[in-house]
Amino acid sequence: MAQDQRENEVGNGWDHEQEENDPNQKNKMRGVGGEEEALSVERIFENQEVPSWRQQLTVRAFVVSFVLSILFSFIVMKLNLTTGIIPSLNVSAGLLGFFFVKTWTKFLSKSGLLKKPFTRQENTVIQTCVVASSGIAFSGGFGSYLFGMSGRIANESSDTSDFKDPSLSWIIGFLFVVSFLGLFSVVPLRKIMIIDFKLTYPSGTATAHLINSFHTPEGAKLAKKQVRTLGKFFSFSFLWGFFQWFYTAEEDCGFKSFPSLGLKAYKNKFYFDFSATYVGVGMICPYIVNISVLLGGILSWGLMWPLIDNRKGDWFPSKLSPTSMHGLQGYKVFIAIAMILGDGLYNFFKVISRTVSGLYSQLKQKDIGVILPVADRSSPASTTPETSFDDQRRTQLFLKDQIPTWFAVAGYVAIAAISIGTLPHIFPQLKWYYIVVIYLFAPTLAFCNAYGCGLTDWSLASTYGKLAIFTIGAWAGASHGGVLAGLAACGVMMNIVSTASDLSQDFKTGYLTLASPRSMFVSQVIGTAMGCVVSPCVFWLFYKAFHDLGTPDSEYPAPFAVVYRNMAILGVEGFSSLPKNCLLLCYVFFGAAILINLIKDCVGKQRGRFIPIPMAMAIPFYIGPYFAIDMCIGSLILFVWEKKNKAKADAFVPAVASGLICGDGIWTLPASILALAGVQPPICMKFLSRATNARVDNFLNPS
Amino acid sequence: MAQDQRENEVGNGWDHEQEENDPNQKNKMRGVGGEEEALSVERIFENQEVPSWRQQLTVRAFVVSFVLSILFSFIVMKLNLTTGIIPSLNVSAGLLGFFFVKTWTKFLSKSGLLKKPFTRQENTVIQTCVVASSGIAFSGGFGSYLFGMSGRIANESSDTSDFKDPSLSWIIGFLFVVSFLGLFSVVPLRKIMIIDFKLTYPSGTATAHLINSFHTPEGAKLAKKQVRTLGKFFSFSFLWGFFQWFYTAEEDCGFKSFPSLGLKAYKNKFYFDFSATYVGVGMICPYIVNISVLLGGILSWGLMWPLIDNRKGDWFPSKLSPTSMHGLQGYKVFIAIAMILGDGLYNFFKVISRTVSGLYSQLKQKDIGVILPVADRSSPASTTPETSFDDQRRTQLFLKDQIPTWFAVAGYVAIAAISIGTLPHIFPQLKWYYIVVIYLFAPTLAFCNAYGCGLTDWSLASTYGKLAIFTIGAWAGASHGGVLAGLAACGVMMNIVSTASDLSQDFKTGYLTLASPRSMFVSQVIGTAMGCVVSPCVFWLFYKAFHDLGTPDSEYPAPFAVVYRNMAILGVEGFSSLPKNCLLLCYVFFGAAILINLIKDCVGKQRGRFIPIPMAMAIPFYIGPYFAIDMCIGSLILFVWEKKNKAKADAFVPAVASGLICGDGIWTLPASILALAGVQPPICMKFLSRATNARVDNFLNPS
Repeated sequence: MAQDQRENEVGNGWDHEQEENDPNQKNKMRGVGGEEEALSVERIFENQEVPSWRQQLTVRAFVVSFVLSILFSFIVMKLNLTTGIIPSLNVSAGLLGFFFVKTWTKFLSKSGLLKKPFTRQENTVIQTCVVASSGIAFSGGFGSYLFGMSGRIANESSDTSDFKDPSLSWIIGFLFVVSFLGLFSVVPLRKIMIIDFKLTYPSGTATAHLINSFHTPEGAKLAKKQVRTLGKFFSFSFLWGFFQWFYTAEEDCGFKSFPSLGLKAYKNKFYFDFSATYVGVGMICPYIVNISVLLGGILSWGLMWPLIDNRKGDWFPSKLSPTSMHGLQGYKVFIAIAMILGDGLYNFFKVISRTVSGLYSQLKQKDIGVILPVADRSSPASTTPETSFDDQRRTQLFLKDQIPTWFAVAGYVAIAAISIGTLPHIFPQLKWYYIVVIYLFAPTLAFCNAYGCGLTDWSLASTYGKLAIFTIGAWAGASHGGVLAGLAACGVMMNIVSTASDLSQDFKTGYLTLASPRSMFVSQVIGTAMGCVVSPCVFWLFYKAFHDLGTPDSEYPAPFAVVYRNMAILGVEGFSSLPKNCLLLCYVFFGAAILINLIKDCVGKQRGRFIPIPMAMAIPFYIGPYFAIDMCIGSLILFVWEKKNKAKADAFVPAVASGLICGDGIWTLPASILALAGVQPPICMKFLSRATNARVDNFLNPS
Repeated sequence: MAQDQRENEVGNGWDHEQEENDPNQKNKMRGVGGEEEALSVERIFENQEVPSWRQQLTVRAFVVSFVLSILFSFIVMKLNLTTGIIPSLNVSAGLLGFFFVKTWTKFLSKSGLLKKPFTRQENTVIQTCVVASSGIAFSGGFGSYLFGMSGRIANESSDTSDFKDPSLSWIIGFLFVVSFLGLFSVVPLRKIMIIDFKLTYPSGTATAHLINSFHTPEGAKLAKKQVRTLGKFFSFSFLWGFFQWFYTAEEDCGFKSFPSLGLKAYKNKFYFDFSATYVGVGMICPYIVNISVLLGGILSWGLMWPLIDNRKGDWFPSKLSPTSMHGLQGYKVFIAIAMILGDGLYNFFKVISRTVSGLYSQLKQKDIGVILPVADRSSPASTTPETSFDDQRRTQLFLKDQIPTWFAVAGYVAIAAISIGTLPHIFPQLKWYYIVVIYLFAPTLAFCNAYGCGLTDWSLASTYGKLAIFTIGAWAGASHGGVLAGLAACGVMMNIVSTASDLSQDFKTGYLTLASPRSMFVSQVIGTAMGCVVSPCVFWLFYKAFHDLGTPDSEYPAPFAVVYRNMAILGVEGFSSLPKNCLLLCYVFFGAAILINLIKDCVGKQRGRFIPIPMAMAIPFYIGPYFAIDMCIGSLILFVWEKKNKAKADAFVPAVASGLICGDGIWTLPASILALAGVQPPICMKFLSRATNARVDNFLNPS
């Protein structure tokens, strides 16, 4: 679960930054919310009765959630397996959830069968359920630790001795025993986080504002337009995927192999691959992310790899297979790891230090009996004294439905016991005492992560996961299958800490939309359960349909699977396996990542936003810069649109981007079904150099 | 010159129909003109002094004309050599002329060097000069009779014995001795046509309204916006052509071979070839033209050719070369000819009968001393009594500068004498007495064509050309090189009659913009002289740069060259050379063409516009329906745009379409220069079936 969650976390971080930089956009996204908030959002909704927590959990909500969770699992899985960059899909989930239920209720009310109107609490329940379910597609590690265990990825790494191929049964079992722990660990702390500390949870707050705005008349009108735009681009993107399919008879055919910048650039992976998904991702991600990715791509594939490749025979043997970790591939993977670790470590210490100082000052203030917001920068409600009508009403409803602490503790202990008993059966390398140690530390780390996320919107789940890889891997050692033990430990750790931060976000959303904590909790449990079944099935479909899943130059290179496996190997074996000068380069890039972050924080927000993000720069190191070109095209579209009509761009860019991402993502469902059924595309669109083409023409039409 | 002019004529006819059907659009195109006309256009311009005819002929006007005539020669030549469908480019010429001189004067006025402001008379002079010059690219027959004489086309026809390959020197000489006759033959008649008969000349009138509107403040604002749109789409279309170039290493490579509807459809030439030109052409042509072309394509390539091909071995020998006229190719060419002739003959008699009846009634009215408009349907000015201010002022200025009749007659006789002396040296097959006969009949036919065109906007030049092919060809006979004699006679005839109608249109434009007939005449002479040099040079560039010019499946199949040559062969040899059942099918399609036209005229304008045009249907018979798909996409864009915003579509569609056509057209200049310089595209985008692709992969990477 490490990598996706890591990306997710980066995604959240980026979102957050963007919102902070542009408060106008936030207001716009919230529709009426921004303005009315000063007048109190809850006054608008005062006449609407808040349904009881049981009434918030409707059957239709879970049916819609299930449909959306399949949709989003496909999208997230596709992103996992292509680049590992996953933008925040909360807005699309909110929009689509609203659209489905609205259509449903409209249909029912026309036929006279409508019993209950669609409430914003119900919308929150759907949102929560979908996020929980598709969260498993991240944290299940299908593009990282879990797939990194497989034999296929082992062959691409430097240690092929120890592997465990994926199988539907053990993956579902594994997810069920580890995914619920996080929920129970954070439940007792919700009052402290939300009411006492008044943490921001920017993503959760933004989602709540979105949902609130949808349920005001003006917001509903804008939402309708946005949904229509989303639908248009969804169809376009889906049909475009379908059209592309026809020309992809073999691996190197079709638009995704289009050498749009020339054959030489194509060989170094500089080309536009016509992916609607990454154009959409580029539109959502802040400019600096896209530029960082492109910079990283130019630095690595444009400069370093060609230079290192020239040393072939000197730095590394020239007759290695191109995927060998002892050759150029090794430099690619380990330099990327160094940069990711440098960035992760810096942010770990940064967030931890802010967590500690934030906690310290809050506890001090609590001691003197006053609860004041500390880091509450983005919620205007909290700037008014706490006696505001909104706060009163929200707090009252939030505290109405309690979840007893004994229930949470008992749940945690029970599930921990089950998983300690079962996990060693799934992974014999993961001894029971490793798990006990993880579960002893886990609640503390989960709290840290939930608190840090509330302050900064960054979930550090994958950093904790990497911590587990290195500590448990080193503990187990090479002779006892340390690689697999490390990867499995990473999964256990990541699931706990990431669900903890997700659920806290949801509690905040629920707090702001008057949804009951109980319904949030139940929805999260149901969503997690859905995810534990849906995600492995989706992954299985990909795994069976695309036989080159995980090979470097394929459509689905799953870059982080190799990265995670090699991290585990590094943890177990040390630096001995690296090729010449690789370690030196790793140190340089590790240091550079920390330095860039330091400079970014020192020069201040205004100038800091022009400094690239090391984490983003590292992603193309392994898979190549082609998706960076897609993303930059997305940026370009956004830039031109914003120049022409800022207001319209702000309102519709998320819808357009979501449409592009969702349409292309859902096309992978029929695509993989076609692949499974053995239906292969009829045409190959091939790109040949003049000389090769002449040879081919001669071969096909000998004259 | 036959085919292009024929298409041009069809183009004009279509334009005309469109305008008649939609009077609103006309007003819009004219900008202010439509409204103000009721109040008198000339009142607006009353304060502006009309420059003398010498002042109307400025150096800058001819410099701009020269630049534009090169641009339009490229466009027309490209259209000639691809499908032979040439839409009316008057609007683009007007827009671009306005834009260039406006930029020029703005630049000069800033630097303080401006001596004379830009007048609408000057604009008319540019317009006239460009139309005259690019008219030679039509009537020079580079895509029809002239290229049909070449050895390359002879090899594709059923009679390869007699040919004359193009060469820059004789083409320029030929054009100079035949192109000026038409001018002199129509000069003495201008007063009768314009003042006495008050003929409509819809294209000339529309152009005049456009120019008038440009020179009012409001019109200039709209024109500026239109020019900007044109520039945007011009750049896009140019860059798109440039981008496509890189992937076209060989004949069957690149976007123009994209099997967008599947490989099977591609084999039958059903595909979208990504040509910006024909999408633009489709946007300008009325819906019914595009639908006719598509229908014709489906009928021929979707139905008839596959069926006839099944008769291989029965109807025609199965082991013929695919380009042999005795096989399937013969059916394609001769059925197309039958349909074109049927349509042409019907319209010939229709226009002639209207000419005669129009003349008759007008002469009768003249006898009783009253001059009343007869067929003046589209010029609102003529609905007011002739004493209107506009008419008075226009007539006064039109009659101020006279061209003496003796000058016209002397000019005609002198040029006729020169050409009778020189033409037999260029074409030994064309005896001097054939030319004398042609020149005796020519003034009458020129008058008929100018008069018919004034009534209906249809120039029948290519029909007169075909008449010459058959009569002179049959007279000369096979043994005396009848094929070449027929084609050359076609050229002589077509040049005279087409220039006559063009100049009459220009006189009408001049009348409505107060430009002097003398300046019109001088401009036309200079434009024709330009065209006689520019067009052959442009053709020469194409001929030298693209060595497969004229071969059926190439980028430039020049379909009408084969059609014209085979017409000449038919005229000389009779029907003996046709394959089995081909003559029967020809009769059927000849009759069908006449029948469809009859029905079209009988059911009335309203329902008649849903009945396809046989002429348009015949074009894809030979070259295939791929360009019909481009044109229908243009129609679709137009349709959607009109649904969304009719007013905006009406104002900007001509600009968008012109931009697309001009950008792609002008790209052929660098493309042919690159080809001449031996720079070949580096990449081949190839489309292979699964099976072939597997073989190719095996060949390239034997494992």
